[in-house]
Amino acid sequence: MITEQFPSKLLERAVNEFAKLPGIGRRTALRLVLHLLKQDAKMTDSLADSLKQLRNEVKYCHICHNISDTDTCELCANPRRDASTICVVENIRGVMAIENTGQFHGLYHVLGGVISPMDGVGPSNLELASLVERVRNNSVQEVILALSPTMEGDTTNFYISRQLAGLPVQLTTLARGLSVGDDLEYADEVTLGRSIATRVPLSGIKN
Amino acid sequence: MITEQFPSKLLERAVNEFAKLPGIGRRTALRLVLHLLKQDAKMTDSLADSLKQLRNEVKYCHICHNISDTDTCELCANPRRDASTICVVENIRGVMAIENTGQFHGLYHVLGGVISPMDGVGPSNLELASLVERVRNNSVQEVILALSPTMEGDTTNFYISRQLAGLPVQLTTLARGLSVGDDLEYADEVTLGRSIATRVPLSGIKN
Repeated sequence: MITEQFPSKLLERAVNEFAKLPGIGRRTALRLVLHLLKQDAKMTDSLADSLKQLRNEVKYCHICHNISDTDTCELCANPRRDASTICVVENIRGVMAIENTGQFHGLYHVLGGVISPMDGVGPSNLELASLVERVRNNSVQEVILALSPTMEGDTTNFYISRQLAGLPVQLTTLARGLSVGDDLEYADEVTLGRSIATRVPLSGIKN
Repeated sequence: MITEQFPSKLLERAVNEFAKLPGIGRRTALRLVLHLLKQDAKMTDSLADSLKQLRNEVKYCHICHNISDTDTCELCANPRRDASTICVVENIRGVMAIENTGQFHGLYHVLGGVISPMDGVGPSNLELASLVERVRNNSVQEVILALSPTMEGDTTNFYISRQLAGLPVQLTTLARGLSVGDDLEYADEVTLGRSIATRVPLSGIKN
C-alpha cells in the first residue's frame, strides 16, 4: 500500500481530500494531485474556484428542482415545452440523458433520489409532495416515471402511483427490453424474459 | 454524448475543470461534481482549499528535489540514512514506492521525468546537472538507477552513465525479471528472456 510515508503534509492532505470522492482511490488521488502540481498554478485555482463557486451559488429550480442558475430553470421557463407532460427522474443526470435523446418535449420533475430504506431515504427526503402538488394544481395529463429499473426505483414508482391515484392523469413508465444493437445471446434473462412477455406488434417499433 | 445541455453554467464550468484532469472524463467529472453538491459545503471547501494551499505553498527539497514541507526534506535531513548511496527516480511516486518496500536506506534524487524527445523533454529539463554535482561533491559510492524499464528510462540511464563516467562511483540498476508470485506462462517473452539471460545462483535469491 502507498498509504504511509508522504513526504509532505500538504500533499497528504490534498490526496486525502481527493480520495474522499467516490471512485477515487488514494493512488488515483496522488496521480491527480501530482498532475496539478506539474501544471500552471492557474489550473489548480480555476478548479478549486469553480467547485467552491458552484457549491456556494448553486440554485435549484423551484418548479422541477433541477440544478439551475436561475430560480426557474430554462426548461420550465420555456413556453414551447409541453407543460401537460411531466417526466419524473431521480437526478439531474436523468434530465441530461433524456434531453440528449431529443425525444421528449415536456417538463421534468427531479426527485433527488429514490425511496431506499436501506440508505435511510424515505418519501419525505424526496421531492414527492411537490410532485403531487404540481400534478394536482396544473393541467398535467401524463406523468412518465423514468426511474432506474431497480427494486428501489420500482418501489418509488409504486409509491408515486398510489399518491397520484384518483387524479385525472395517465401514468406511464419507460419501456424495458433489449437495447438497440444488443445481441440476443448477451441479454440477461430477466430483460429478455420481460421483452418476450411485453412483446409489441412489429409496426410499433420505431428507431 | 452527455456533453451538451448542462442546465447550469456553474455546473458546466466545474465539470469542465474536473474533466481536464488525466483519466477523468466528462461523465466521471459530472458524477464527482454532483457528489460534492450532495455533501456538506465544508467538504468542497476543504478539497478546494487543500489543492490551492498545496499548489501555492509546495516546496521541493534543495538536495533531492522531492516534494517537501521544508527546504531540506525529512529523508535528506535524517542522519541515519546512508548518504553514500543515491537512488535516482523519476518522480515522487518512485520515492514512495521504494520507501514502502523498506529495503532501501540511502538517499534519493528525483529527476522530474525521463529523457523523452517525443514529449520535448531533454536533459536540461531534468535534475541531471544537480545529480552529477551531487555525486561529485559528496562521497557518493553508489548510484542506483531506478527508472521505468522503458525506452525513455533506458535512454536516461545511458545518459546518466555517460555523465558520471570517470567519477569513482558504482552504477547499478534495479534487477529485471519475474515478479514474485508471477506465473511463468503469463510472463511476457522479453521479461522471461531477460530473466533467463541474467539468471542468478540459487543462493542469491532473497525474499
